[in-house]
Amino acid sequence: MKDIEPKELGKYLWIKEKISEIFRRYGFQMMEPSTIENLETLEAKCGPEIREEIYWFKDKAGRSLGLRFDLTVGMTRMVANRYDLPEPIKLCAIAGMWRYDEPQFARYRFFHQWDAEIYGSIEPEADAEVISLSMDILENVGLKEYEVRISNRKLIEGFLRLLGINSTEKLESAFRIIDKITKIPKEEIVKKFLELNFMEFVISKILEFTSIRGKLNEAIEEIPRDLLKNDLCKKGYEELLGLIEVLEAFDKIDKCILDLSIVRGIGYYDGIVFEAYDKGGEDIGAILGGGRYDRLCKILGKKDMPATGVAGGIERMMISLERLGSLKSISQVPEVFLAAVDDSSRRKLWKIVNELRKEGIATDFDLKRRSLKKQMEYANSLGIRYVAIIGPKEIEKGIIRLKDMSKHEENELSFEEFKKKILKSRHS
Amino acid sequence: MKDIEPKELGKYLWIKEKISEIFRRYGFQMMEPSTIENLETLEAKCGPEIREEIYWFKDKAGRSLGLRFDLTVGMTRMVANRYDLPEPIKLCAIAGMWRYDEPQFARYRFFHQWDAEIYGSIEPEADAEVISLSMDILENVGLKEYEVRISNRKLIEGFLRLLGINSTEKLESAFRIIDKITKIPKEEIVKKFLELNFMEFVISKILEFTSIRGKLNEAIEEIPRDLLKNDLCKKGYEELLGLIEVLEAFDKIDKCILDLSIVRGIGYYDGIVFEAYDKGGEDIGAILGGGRYDRLCKILGKKDMPATGVAGGIERMMISLERLGSLKSISQVPEVFLAAVDDSSRRKLWKIVNELRKEGIATDFDLKRRSLKKQMEYANSLGIRYVAIIGPKEIEKGIIRLKDMSKHEENELSFEEFKKKILKSRHS
Repeated sequence: MKDIEPKELGKYLWIKEKISEIFRRYGFQMMEPSTIENLETLEAKCGPEIREEIYWFKDKAGRSLGLRFDLTVGMTRMVANRYDLPEPIKLCAIAGMWRYDEPQFARYRFFHQWDAEIYGSIEPEADAEVISLSMDILENVGLKEYEVRISNRKLIEGFLRLLGINSTEKLESAFRIIDKITKIPKEEIVKKFLELNFMEFVISKILEFTSIRGKLNEAIEEIPRDLLKNDLCKKGYEELLGLIEVLEAFDKIDKCILDLSIVRGIGYYDGIVFEAYDKGGEDIGAILGGGRYDRLCKILGKKDMPATGVAGGIERMMISLERLGSLKSISQVPEVFLAAVDDSSRRKLWKIVNELRKEGIATDFDLKRRSLKKQMEYANSLGIRYVAIIGPKEIEKGIIRLKDMSKHEENELSFEEFKKKILKSRHS
Repeated sequence: MKDIEPKELGKYLWIKEKISEIFRRYGFQMMEPSTIENLETLEAKCGPEIREEIYWFKDKAGRSLGLRFDLTVGMTRMVANRYDLPEPIKLCAIAGMWRYDEPQFARYRFFHQWDAEIYGSIEPEADAEVISLSMDILENVGLKEYEVRISNRKLIEGFLRLLGINSTEKLESAFRIIDKITKIPKEEIVKKFLELNFMEFVISKILEFTSIRGKLNEAIEEIPRDLLKNDLCKKGYEELLGLIEVLEAFDKIDKCILDLSIVRGIGYYDGIVFEAYDKGGEDIGAILGGGRYDRLCKILGKKDMPATGVAGGIERMMISLERLGSLKSISQVPEVFLAAVDDSSRRKLWKIVNELRKEGIATDFDLKRRSLKKQMEYANSLGIRYVAIIGPKEIEKGIIRLKDMSKHEENELSFEEFKKKILKSRHS
């Protein structure tokens, strides 16, 4: 498994800060669920087939344990076993997780997600809250060219039931195929449905219905009114209407798309579902996704509580941001390097280092007692912009000789001028 | 393994920020070594007995892997196998790690450390750098009542060799006993030495020598001069002198103590070693510790590189800070809660929520369409200080009714006054 080196970690920390700020504004409180869970907890969400995709082992006491593969399971397991938390409970997390996957583009064995969940509310405000939060997160990291594709599982399920698809197994298979509609060619979709013995007119009905797509508050009119005689469809439709009302008040409706091909792959969603796509990164898949999962709490704990939430991959977001060139200037490189002309200058140099650090300036200096030339090479190879040269002459004159490596400029400055210059260059 | 709940995580994030700021000033670049290592890498530092204390397992390909138990091994394994990094390499990390311990006070199965390492310098500047960094970290989190106890392994090893203790095994056993000198009663120390067949005059010489203790730049005079005829002792002594020179220039000498009972338990240290103790927390042990380990790189990689570093436990630091009461005001609770008087007011309320969040104010509101009374109870149970009440009357008058729950005050404010009041209260 790979190390996260300073360059990448610097970007990760920048993204984390941008996301955390939005979490804070929305009143989500950050936690970190346990890294290790009982294997049965991990299996509860996705079934025992998850074993194949995760790191699991027996501990010295013989218990089967696994490394978390997402943050939702742990957060939900926690709140579903607690009676002391006032509802709704708004929690968020940004942390690493593990999957025993063959590593491939935009998928790693150790990766990071951000995650926000609301437990205890059935109202569309809660769904609007996580969707609005997601959009503000994308805006705050600078991914402004995106759309949020929204649907409702109840609406789709009701529609499938009206077509005579009623067994849980058939419904789940149908959802899994619908989830692929925009990802694989149409012929393959049809083939998959045929393999399930779906009749051709049913398949074409499904393809027609799931192709409904347009601005959320407009395309909702395209949903055939006669569907609403079905209770499940009606409920799903009303949830969408409620959502629209809050998203309009939040001034978030413009980038929201109704897209009835969105169902989310995983089985436990049961209401509003959504995915956001960065326009420059359709190839890496959804940049975030979520929805309502009112049944999971009871599976993972003692408490039956409605829930809705969202999660997104940090590494995928990083790829989108890299393509935009937004992460170029993020660096952990020190602001200034102090180079000593000779050994007699080192004592004075150490004192200046200490002064600069006290002022909050990221300062490095020679730790190897090298020649001035070697010191300059080192500072250069690290990419440090400013090198301050301290020698007997500079000490005598009470000045600092400052080289701006980016401009090949050299100036003699007083200590105060020197400090000001470094601090000023932060904002340029 | 436990979840890190919002209250604790808030404190952890606060501490992490304070430490990161000092890392930045010192020009250390943050990375995160792999969470999972080959078992043999983990064993290289401490021997195969480490298996008993860590989480390890075989993966699906049959490889023996383990969860990291510290950050030093991963960082050192990385740099020792890389030829592209300009030396010295200054790296730092703050992250979680796992030990299969019986959980006990101030020891957990999943815990966090901060860690800073310098690879590639043999000069005392590098040791001074990590000690000075450690001290600034303690100052920056607000633990100002501490001392750094410093010694040198070469000095102690030379002294032991002069007493005829020459085998690696005996030396390592002696170091392990010396490490316990301030932690267990003197009789037990003597007993442990006797079990190793150390002669009584040798034991009393060791006890006398390791009791040398005082301000670093003064107590160094107490080291018997005739020891310096021994090369190893002389080297260790000179390293201490070099360290003093830099720590004086860094204005850090006052809280530095020479304490020859400090040797660090683990075998691989071979020069300057140190531990810092919080005066209010001697019972939880060293709050940080480190030293020089010039031989570890070659064990973990291809590259032979001197190294010196420091690490400290975040949870221990948290205990010390809790005792001082410094973490009391840290909270993730939203700044304001918007309560709706009736359903007709909700649409307006959502718009105000959106405005406040845009201004950077942490804002929560009712997600359950509850009565005003229930909303107030919820805000109160979360500990939110300000509740803004929005009803038909307030909307008509264009004002906000603001309750300060801490002072039981209520005021009618314009939106602008309201925002100002919330922002102002942040700094009070």
